[in-house]
Amino acid sequence: MTTCTASEVLTVMNERHACKIMDGEKKIPEETFQTLLEVGRLSPSSFGYEPWKFLVVQDPKLRAKLKPLTWGAQNTLDTASHFVMILARTAQSMRYDSDYIQHMMRDIHHLPEAHIAKRQQFYRTFQEADFNLLESDRAMFDWACKQTYITLANMMTLAASMGIDSCPVEGFQQQAVNELLKTDFGVDTDTFQISVMCAFGYRVNPPKPKTRQPLEDIVQWF
Amino acid sequence: MTTCTASEVLTVMNERHACKIMDGEKKIPEETFQTLLEVGRLSPSSFGYEPWKFLVVQDPKLRAKLKPLTWGAQNTLDTASHFVMILARTAQSMRYDSDYIQHMMRDIHHLPEAHIAKRQQFYRTFQEADFNLLESDRAMFDWACKQTYITLANMMTLAASMGIDSCPVEGFQQQAVNELLKTDFGVDTDTFQISVMCAFGYRVNPPKPKTRQPLEDIVQWF
Repeated sequence: MTTCTASEVLTVMNERHACKIMDGEKKIPEETFQTLLEVGRLSPSSFGYEPWKFLVVQDPKLRAKLKPLTWGAQNTLDTASHFVMILARTAQSMRYDSDYIQHMMRDIHHLPEAHIAKRQQFYRTFQEADFNLLESDRAMFDWACKQTYITLANMMTLAASMGIDSCPVEGFQQQAVNELLKTDFGVDTDTFQISVMCAFGYRVNPPKPKTRQPLEDIVQWF
Repeated sequence: MTTCTASEVLTVMNERHACKIMDGEKKIPEETFQTLLEVGRLSPSSFGYEPWKFLVVQDPKLRAKLKPLTWGAQNTLDTASHFVMILARTAQSMRYDSDYIQHMMRDIHHLPEAHIAKRQQFYRTFQEADFNLLESDRAMFDWACKQTYITLANMMTLAASMGIDSCPVEGFQQQAVNELLKTDFGVDTDTFQISVMCAFGYRVNPPKPKTRQPLEDIVQWF
């Protein structure tokens, strides 16, 4: 087991900040960035569905096309060492009866053939009854997006633990970005759509002090 | 800055697993658990809205009431050292024109009075145009839930870094749990509803090997 101290953990949390201006000259070593992708890959997700894809956008021409649609990354699109678009799977591939879920059960989770039908029924109950995800395509997609926020958090936090800064980006025009994904990134947007983005690189300025609600406003013991 | 190595980071990611059976006799030291709450508190969220509340459920009677509604925590409700329900704010308190957002701008973010109206207009554009969150109360609530998954991920991952196991729980009946929140936890469910839960404690058995899609299936470079 690993044994970080409380103080080390809090240092990481405090070092992680929304780094909006990055040093355009400093590049994250390739091996370190691969570790961050591995952090995304190893992140947990509901039922182990891993409903995500990571596009690493390094081509300046593509970054330039993103820029007018992505007000939340006006500086980082120009200066981030690595810029990641995190896509989430759409309702079509998240349904309990989709080909993708069959693929995950058989080829990734290696479920015995005899368990597949029962597991699918179990997923169906969850999606229909417990969380009512079949209510709309948006509800199902947002459920997939929630899982991608786990990868986002892990990648940002463990980046900070390695001395790398990040800036999460929700400031973009969803529909327009999905159009661009189709036209310029060759993404099948019936299967994947944009969930969130994240820039990784190195700070130029020290972080501003954090503002947060006090613990007593957000925690209750029972 | 902190400087974990790639190998330390990957060890943490591999130690973190969905620990479904915990040692009912082992308690997380109070100071360490406070650190985990602090990790939740310091987590980032869209626009710094912090749309969350953490209920730490230690009372065996309340855990027993949760149990029939929470199939995903059948063992951990009995054995977790600490059991956390993460609530998210509802549409009513997440709207750009809500009292809560006014409170955050004024009392937490300390925005100058002259900037408040402009910032509210900015939030409105995001909620209406960019993400279409006003489409339904569910869309807005799910957006708040996404932010709580950032706290979930950070708490689980940094728990692992301190040698503490966890198990995330989406396996519950949403509506029934919200009813219980109202009747037995005194929660105003017009303002907060259940997003996700997480058990924290200590493993009894070694983790099973992880199953994940290969990196080349989930990463594309541009």
